[in-house]
Amino acid sequence: MWKAEVQVTLKDVVFDPQGNAVERQLDELGYKGVQKVRIGKYIEVLFDVKTRAEAESQLDEICKRVLVNQVLEHYSYQLVEVL
Amino acid sequence: MWKAEVQVTLKDVVFDPQGNAVERQLDELGYKGVQKVRIGKYIEVLFDVKTRAEAESQLDEICKRVLVNQVLEHYSYQLVEVL
Repeated sequence: MWKAEVQVTLKDVVFDPQGNAVERQLDELGYKGVQKVRIGKYIEVLFDVKTRAEAESQLDEICKRVLVNQVLEHYSYQLVEVL
Repeated sequence: MWKAEVQVTLKDVVFDPQGNAVERQLDELGYKGVQKVRIGKYIEVLFDVKTRAEAESQLDEICKRVLVNQVLEHYSYQLVEVL
């Protein structure tokens, strides 16, 4: 079994109103050290396949087809074997 | 400057309808190897502070106070120095 941990983030040029709202709120709460907040998605996908290559190729396809809007978003992942 | 990469996930006992919907959809699309999908948040916070300790203590406070609902969610993070 393989566990994929996928981070999906808005591209830098894309406006992030949710992140901006949190940023302002933190500033109002007195966290003056906070420069920037960006909010994305974190997705765990568990694969019941034999090899890392198999998991990776399915994951890449799933990301592009279902999980990620590649016009607006980037993604990256770690793939770890689990028992 | 320090960049925190925070993963916020629902606790295992908490029902995840969004994850389940994606799981079913992937099954219908023919990805039979997918066992489970869980969906959480990924948050990047940029700190303009001098030391790692300072960034870490602010981040921990911010997570508990603003970013994470500790009744339902877990969080973990990596903290990396950036220029």
